[in-house]
Amino acid sequence: MLRMLTSGESHGPKIAGILDGMPAGLKIDMDYLRGFMARRRGGYGRGKRMSVETDEPVFSGGVHDGFTTGAPIMVELSNRADNPTPGERYVPRPGHADYVGYIKYGLKDLNIVAERASARETAIRTLLGAICSLALRELNIEVFAFTRSIGKVSLNRRYWEIENLLGKRDNSVLYCPDEETTQLMIREIEDAKAKGDSLGGSFTVVAKNVPPGLGSYVQWDRRLDAALGFSLLSIPSVKAVEIGEAIEGSRLFGSEFHDRFVVEDGVLKRSSNNAGGIEGGVSNGEDIVLTAYLKPIPSSFAINSSIDLVSLKEAPLPYVRSDTVVVPAASVVGEAMVSFTILCFLLEKFGGDEFTEIKERVEVWRRKLLR
Amino acid sequence: MLRMLTSGESHGPKIAGILDGMPAGLKIDMDYLRGFMARRRGGYGRGKRMSVETDEPVFSGGVHDGFTTGAPIMVELSNRADNPTPGERYVPRPGHADYVGYIKYGLKDLNIVAERASARETAIRTLLGAICSLALRELNIEVFAFTRSIGKVSLNRRYWEIENLLGKRDNSVLYCPDEETTQLMIREIEDAKAKGDSLGGSFTVVAKNVPPGLGSYVQWDRRLDAALGFSLLSIPSVKAVEIGEAIEGSRLFGSEFHDRFVVEDGVLKRSSNNAGGIEGGVSNGEDIVLTAYLKPIPSSFAINSSIDLVSLKEAPLPYVRSDTVVVPAASVVGEAMVSFTILCFLLEKFGGDEFTEIKERVEVWRRKLLR
Amino acid sequence: MLRMLTSGESHGPKIAGILDGMPAGLKIDMDYLRGFMARRRGGYGRGKRMSVETDEPVFSGGVHDGFTTGAPIMVELSNRADNPTPGERYVPRPGHADYVGYIKYGLKDLNIVAERASARETAIRTLLGAICSLALRELNIEVFAFTRSIGKVSLNRRYWEIENLLGKRDNSVLYCPDEETTQLMIREIEDAKAKGDSLGGSFTVVAKNVPPGLGSYVQWDRRLDAALGFSLLSIPSVKAVEIGEAIEGSRLFGSEFHDRFVVEDGVLKRSSNNAGGIEGGVSNGEDIVLTAYLKPIPSSFAINSSIDLVSLKEAPLPYVRSDTVVVPAASVVGEAMVSFTILCFLLEKFGGDEFTEIKERVEVWRRKLLR
Amino acid sequence: MLRMLTSGESHGPKIAGILDGMPAGLKIDMDYLRGFMARRRGGYGRGKRMSVETDEPVFSGGVHDGFTTGAPIMVELSNRADNPTPGERYVPRPGHADYVGYIKYGLKDLNIVAERASARETAIRTLLGAICSLALRELNIEVFAFTRSIGKVSLNRRYWEIENLLGKRDNSVLYCPDEETTQLMIREIEDAKAKGDSLGGSFTVVAKNVPPGLGSYVQWDRRLDAALGFSLLSIPSVKAVEIGEAIEGSRLFGSEFHDRFVVEDGVLKRSSNNAGGIEGGVSNGEDIVLTAYLKPIPSSFAINSSIDLVSLKEAPLPYVRSDTVVVPAASVVGEAMVSFTILCFLLEKFGGDEFTEIKERVEVWRRKLLR
Repeated sequence: MLRMLTSGESHGPKIAGILDGMPAGLKIDMDYLRGFMARRRGGYGRGKRMSVETDEPVFSGGVHDGFTTGAPIMVELSNRADNPTPGERYVPRPGHADYVGYIKYGLKDLNIVAERASARETAIRTLLGAICSLALRELNIEVFAFTRSIGKVSLNRRYWEIENLLGKRDNSVLYCPDEETTQLMIREIEDAKAKGDSLGGSFTVVAKNVPPGLGSYVQWDRRLDAALGFSLLSIPSVKAVEIGEAIEGSRLFGSEFHDRFVVEDGVLKRSSNNAGGIEGGVSNGEDIVLTAYLKPIPSSFAINSSIDLVSLKEAPLPYVRSDTVVVPAASVVGEAMVSFTILCFLLEKFGGDEFTEIKERVEVWRRKLLR
Repeated sequence: MLRMLTSGESHGPKIAGILDGMPAGLKIDMDYLRGFMARRRGGYGRGKRMSVETDEPVFSGGVHDGFTTGAPIMVELSNRADNPTPGERYVPRPGHADYVGYIKYGLKDLNIVAERASARETAIRTLLGAICSLALRELNIEVFAFTRSIGKVSLNRRYWEIENLLGKRDNSVLYCPDEETTQLMIREIEDAKAKGDSLGGSFTVVAKNVPPGLGSYVQWDRRLDAALGFSLLSIPSVKAVEIGEAIEGSRLFGSEFHDRFVVEDGVLKRSSNNAGGIEGGVSNGEDIVLTAYLKPIPSSFAINSSIDLVSLKEAPLPYVRSDTVVVPAASVVGEAMVSFTILCFLLEKFGGDEFTEIKERVEVWRRKLLR
Repeated sequence: MLRMLTSGESHGPKIAGILDGMPAGLKIDMDYLRGFMARRRGGYGRGKRMSVETDEPVFSGGVHDGFTTGAPIMVELSNRADNPTPGERYVPRPGHADYVGYIKYGLKDLNIVAERASARETAIRTLLGAICSLALRELNIEVFAFTRSIGKVSLNRRYWEIENLLGKRDNSVLYCPDEETTQLMIREIEDAKAKGDSLGGSFTVVAKNVPPGLGSYVQWDRRLDAALGFSLLSIPSVKAVEIGEAIEGSRLFGSEFHDRFVVEDGVLKRSSNNAGGIEGGVSNGEDIVLTAYLKPIPSSFAINSSIDLVSLKEAPLPYVRSDTVVVPAASVVGEAMVSFTILCFLLEKFGGDEFTEIKERVEVWRRKLLR
Repeated sequence: MLRMLTSGESHGPKIAGILDGMPAGLKIDMDYLRGFMARRRGGYGRGKRMSVETDEPVFSGGVHDGFTTGAPIMVELSNRADNPTPGERYVPRPGHADYVGYIKYGLKDLNIVAERASARETAIRTLLGAICSLALRELNIEVFAFTRSIGKVSLNRRYWEIENLLGKRDNSVLYCPDEETTQLMIREIEDAKAKGDSLGGSFTVVAKNVPPGLGSYVQWDRRLDAALGFSLLSIPSVKAVEIGEAIEGSRLFGSEFHDRFVVEDGVLKRSSNNAGGIEGGVSNGEDIVLTAYLKPIPSSFAINSSIDLVSLKEAPLPYVRSDTVVVPAASVVGEAMVSFTILCFLLEKFGGDEFTEIKERVEVWRRKLLR
């Protein structure tokens, strides 16, 4: 059982997290983690905060001599000391947690709400998920994400048709594996910026080589698809989740949508993957494909007044953050959350307390399926 | 803490479920439950099975003299004895759990997989959720669902613009609160039927008068939106979930999407509800709005062959079920699952072991918010 | 992840339970289950209720052709129809749940509380635990329990010194594997009966051949000992739990208590087992040994008045049940709960969805430990 | 829902923990926490490690201006930098996690196991539990612990008969609220020390003014007694737990053991509290009383050799720690764990996200019970 709790506030000394249940013997590849964190900080259209964070992972538990020990992993990311704490605020921003935090926790100063509701928290989740991604790589499972749309501009090719997808994604300032679409997206962002406005969009996460058999159809709360949906919906600004080609698929005939079984060279395969790698709530061996849709970020010059909760009168809204769009960064968080969730289900199916043991069991399973 | 486990197979003697954690003192309104179950069985475009089930709820625990006692509720629904058990089958249907059940549980006969993966299971979840809906009604919270699209035909009005929505929904054989759209949907279904094909679509669930403050932004796994998404994705065939106007919203500017705070007659309100009643993962007092997208059902005459898992050769696929579309029925399951999930979060916020106590606390909370 | 929920009341139509997460492929040996249930009903010193129950297990989910399918197992035990429902009662019995149910759930009639708080509920847990015991036997793990003390009479030999322990236990009407002690216990019971009084006592559960490595020291809530303690304390009347020789051990020197490592024929062994098979919260390969202490049962002729909750005046207490001691029966419940808990931890360590797979992994593990 | 995860190793930079679910508005009384931590470090018979730790709590999340915010609380305790890390070790100490960590996590160097299995981890749990104790004090609930026995010397008075118990406890170097017994215990320890041996013992935790109605009898895993037992058994060296006077009670007649209802000045009371404040798994309003039994600590000069896991030959055991007895310190950990567990159940019954709200509900409940 893998568990993850995070803590820390946006302007506190640090954000930190505990990952309990990671098996022993995983080599912590710091370069991989740094690269993962750098991707989250990047992405065209982001504001200044990103450049002030360095996000160097500091481990203070669960790792010995560069390998996990089975003990809970604790990692921290410092917040920059020169990042000034904002003053008090009583005017809630629409689309933020301001108002709900005010009523739920009785926090008069909305900036205290914002401290924890801040997307800064996703940095630590990303780091913990990146560790899970490392674990999956040990088992030859690869999880990656890319930007699918920004505002009205959408990638109009299927990911499996794109050669060298990761290379192209990494060359795009928006993590979109298509140069032309990236240019159109940049123009969309420039346009929004000029208006002092913000944008949303969507990203897709793909998990390749996931062993079939994760999740279950036998009880409502054991389905892999529902858990993956949960993990993406837990990311701030994500408001919809799609598995495979579900939304377009809801308009198709059954005969058009469903992925036929075929035999190629004596091996059972599928002719397509509209189901996104999950049938009956269980991984079926095809790529797991998920798309998350983000609302436009709530902070923008264009929303410059709201209601003061003390006076109940209209009041100006101080402008606090200048990202125009967070979809590229959010895609990295999505990659992390999907990695975490798949590892949870994998550990449930294979058990095991150290990676030698788990690798053996996964191999036995893969070999058995080929018979 | 409310928990729900179900059991039973499609052709077994019964399906049954346990709902643990329901407070005491809830009057079990049998007519309400029967009406709920009848709605699930109904809906144009369904096959014969529905007419053979009567789905009369039988309580065998947790209820005394028509009121809940705090003890776990156990309910059962008989399966009709004359519903013949199918023979063995080795040819998996694409889009079903057949293949994944075969590899995961080592079940050679795919009909044993299908027995539990059957949508028949959703009948018992619906019943348990209907009990939760009754509980919410005690607290003046109303949850309802309606069909939003069938195949390519979509309701093109917002639900809040439709007068007498529930009346119109109940008059529609497809649970779509618009007569003209219903007619177009019927035509879509007739067309699919004629081709021996199947359809998907979407439904929307709305929860009115949910107290603000359910869920939390403080930890990734305590968000109400993620839990609601989970609960809808746990329904067979649902492959995407949208909160509020998320998908269209991902293409808008922030200034177009976000729901402004306004004051009307001294009361804080919102000018719109694109967020679907949830901000920062917490209910904000507006209607909670969720849309679920269903793939076309996998069984159809149009998919009449697959691969025999023993011989790995192509083989005919026996046709077992004749629904063309299940969106209307699934909308009732969705209503049930959303009711269950909202009640879970409500009990977490208000605690309480019997309804007098809970009602008092909810009232105190609502009064406090008006100050 | 193995989960168990039960439902049903003492005088309702049935008690039932769902066991979710049992792997597929376990042969359901009905004779074994019947024998287990018969043991729970037996034991000298029990009242009439036991003879009216037959406790024939009826499966209504999760089993096909005598084997588990991976689907949730649902089993039921009928209550005898001629078991008369008692009338209303307002006078709480000390030591029962009467008073706490009254205040917590607002149940005015204490017999409604008693319906669910009744030890009748343990019959269904015993059945579900007996199924877990069957699963453990597939893996050559044996769990058994015996009576250790009744009132002031205590077995004064260590269980491992007793030859043919199970034979002797089964020959004892009190499940005590020593004839002389059994006779003394019978006299103790006769004496209590004559006074219209009741007795408590203790039982020991032993689990043999449990793979080392179940549980963990890395997080406070993952310890096997704590979970086993929980499972025994969840049995009505059990008020203390001891692992190994803990209570006597708390009075010894460290040098007297701790179980030394020794090597015999090239194999690592222990010179004693005062730790009861668990070190650092993890099974260490020795017998797991737990002792549960029961308070005397609360119902007896000797407690014949209490306070009427309506009038707050002293009032006679109707006598409802005539067991003098339930330790032997409780020992069978303990055996079931320990079996359930060990299987939970075993499935966490080994994963797996069907028994062939799990057996292989357990064998690999056992072989590896011998190297 | 209150959750607690800890991390960190004995010789790492720090130990840390996250407490998720603490309501907002709790004043963090640093002096109270420091006093709590000082008590854990103290106690006669402890070794040098204690004097090197200062255990100053450092909050890095969840607290603003000295009050909780509802966000997860993160606290840290530094390990002293000059605390030297031990070298590698292949010889397992009996009674420690050494061997089970070696096989479970494949850790060749047993000191890596010992790093996390160390009782140092209980310092952070104590701190988190002390915060829960603060929260309970806001609600006028008091939890305290004292030493009951050390080796063969046992306190032979009931705690409620001792006037000024806390004063006497705090005056005792062994936290035993009786001077004479303390002197006998010191002599017992001196004797053990002289032999290079170690001792165990027992402590009692009492919780006063706990609202009745926490926990439930309706489902096996919702009982307060089982959860409290779990929380104490999760403390290293605790191997048995007793609720109220269970062990002695198992030898009594029912008429001697059970706590009669009486009415005094129109208020319902109990004539005794052998049940330790819990009936049917639910708090009944009387003092909750729990006793934990500890094995003698495993490290001692008297156990100076074991088996080398590489060579399987006898080998000397390096002596690492010099506590003779940890019962007094463990009693403080017990106080913390019981505080945490009672707060968990209290929040389940009363819900609530900030203390004003929770206090009101608890008061309403207490007033209602007096009617």
